[in-house]
Amino acid sequence: MFSTNFLTNRAVVFTSNGDPMKVVRVVSFPNLPPPRPKSVNIRYILSPINPSDINVIEGVYPAKPEARADLAQVGPGSAEEPCFIAGNEGLAEVQEVGEGVGGLASGDRVVMVKPQSGTWSTGANVGEQDVIKVPKIGRAATISEVQGATMSVNPPTAYNMLNNFVELRPGDWIVQNGANSAVSAQSLWPGFSSLENELKELGATHVLPLELLSDRSARSRIKEVTGGANIRLALNCVSGPTTAAMVGLLGPDAHLVSYGAMSKRPLLLPTSAFIFKGLTAHGFMQNRWYRENDLEKREELMNELAKLMVTRKLREPRHMILDIPRTASDDDATSKVRDIIEKVTSGKGMFGRKVLLRFEN
Amino acid sequence: MFSTNFLTNRAVVFTSNGDPMKVVRVVSFPNLPPPRPKSVNIRYILSPINPSDINVIEGVYPAKPEARADLAQVGPGSAEEPCFIAGNEGLAEVQEVGEGVGGLASGDRVVMVKPQSGTWSTGANVGEQDVIKVPKIGRAATISEVQGATMSVNPPTAYNMLNNFVELRPGDWIVQNGANSAVSAQSLWPGFSSLENELKELGATHVLPLELLSDRSARSRIKEVTGGANIRLALNCVSGPTTAAMVGLLGPDAHLVSYGAMSKRPLLLPTSAFIFKGLTAHGFMQNRWYRENDLEKREELMNELAKLMVTRKLREPRHMILDIPRTASDDDATSKVRDIIEKVTSGKGMFGRKVLLRFEN
Repeated sequence: MFSTNFLTNRAVVFTSNGDPMKVVRVVSFPNLPPPRPKSVNIRYILSPINPSDINVIEGVYPAKPEARADLAQVGPGSAEEPCFIAGNEGLAEVQEVGEGVGGLASGDRVVMVKPQSGTWSTGANVGEQDVIKVPKIGRAATISEVQGATMSVNPPTAYNMLNNFVELRPGDWIVQNGANSAVSAQSLWPGFSSLENELKELGATHVLPLELLSDRSARSRIKEVTGGANIRLALNCVSGPTTAAMVGLLGPDAHLVSYGAMSKRPLLLPTSAFIFKGLTAHGFMQNRWYRENDLEKREELMNELAKLMVTRKLREPRHMILDIPRTASDDDATSKVRDIIEKVTSGKGMFGRKVLLRFEN
Repeated sequence: MFSTNFLTNRAVVFTSNGDPMKVVRVVSFPNLPPPRPKSVNIRYILSPINPSDINVIEGVYPAKPEARADLAQVGPGSAEEPCFIAGNEGLAEVQEVGEGVGGLASGDRVVMVKPQSGTWSTGANVGEQDVIKVPKIGRAATISEVQGATMSVNPPTAYNMLNNFVELRPGDWIVQNGANSAVSAQSLWPGFSSLENELKELGATHVLPLELLSDRSARSRIKEVTGGANIRLALNCVSGPTTAAMVGLLGPDAHLVSYGAMSKRPLLLPTSAFIFKGLTAHGFMQNRWYRENDLEKREELMNELAKLMVTRKLREPRHMILDIPRTASDDDATSKVRDIIEKVTSGKGMFGRKVLLRFEN
């Protein structure tokens, strides 16, 4: 329909939920109209391919992008089928601002605060409230593009879980599971000690293998490690029985904050932990936080995170970049994207690396 | 050892945990010495026999009374064995105050705030901080002795669970399980409609049978009942899968407060309820509340409860009184106590009634 030579607009789309190997396609689309009032046109620079993005495509995550009526014509389905662009998170640059936009100018770097914005594309028109400006990137003592692209979900999730539930003081201990984060990375890691070193370099004080939790001596081992101090905060992305074992390590009046359930099992906790030990169990989802907090709070959070990045308290994630050359056909691009989705899903050959998508523009 | 004719001091004691039918005994004991400084001598008027008291005797509840060295001589075991008096809750009258006691005088009615005070007895010397004065009882427009005897555990538990987790406004809905409270009473009730009527008289707006929860239409049925309003507070004393089903009826940002686990199964909840629906799970135990709140707060709470009782918003529980006549031998008294413990444990013939123990004095 369009000659590839003249097209620089592309997106990873799907028209119905299902196996990404079947439903995901890369399509080219014509230039977007100028942004409407209170909207901005943005160009995506780097967009992570997170496991939850794949879950959205599969339809097993309770979130769905809005259908893009303007793409129905170029989508893989019939013109009547809804067309969705995948991708939740990404770093973008403002290209053009619509009427009445305050606080954003061409050249500003932004990240998404509206979930499922469709970041796996070259660009979009979005509402000014759906993005937050991030501190200038790429100069000395600033954050990298990879940090910018990955800063709107995981770092604020960690930051808020550490700050919003327990008032932590220097010397306090926290415990978390799934600390290596990418699914199954642990079992594929070339040995526990290599993982241990990696996590310690990122800030872990002690790394304990899962087997320890089923050991009856776990509690006394933890007491040794903490010098007798009670653990008051636990972060959970696994659930199932191993999380119950982790909760057994906590002191009185502790808080358990869940942000995932990688085991695909429910949270299973003894009622006595709540009644007699004063446990409180919460959940955390960064998207809910964005919904409940105003622009000022959001920018404040981004600035806090940028500070932590600049001072290297928060490191760039291990990553690889998937480049889609401008000269690649839509079919070739589709193959590349499906291929990487398969790898992210299985974790094979990823070694805990995050994948970021970049369309040559 | 003592002639029964002259003894009015008796207690239900045990020297080791185990089957109450075997380890519990009623013993007589000599007069207590005058109360020490900052202590008071109290005479128990009425003391409930709660299921948790039986659990303490069995050793399956994480609480134990202090050994009463002064009773070792009269206890059922050897003089070297520790002797414990059973009973957590009760209404008592101050008989004599020790040196330096302020705020308590002879004739004051008090309830226990120290757990496992050994209320199944005729009287004791206790620290002034271990009791709270309750509003004068027995006059017009005041609370009954049964209400006084049962006001330090269940009513404040309900009051605090309703007030400390969610700010409820008129028109808000709450959901609870085990609403008929005494274990197994439901299955022994002469039919559901009789239970339903009983609970509605106590203040329930709708009474739903457990079977409804496993029904796929449960949520829409609840929406009908609440007129579409979201339920923001759930009280749980059951746990296990039925509590997960109850949690499924809750709206966003709801709070689940557990105060028991009658099913003896863990709390089993989908992690998604925490992450996507903002559920928070807490536990509540009135004894912890007493530990964490000062005398002023405790008295404030008792006054609030007394007000609710006087205005009949809080009713006297259905009950029966077990009188132990002064003329009964210790062996006869032991049989009576064991007999009622068996009934409370099985729920047979109790029809949800609370049992209160009264020693003739």
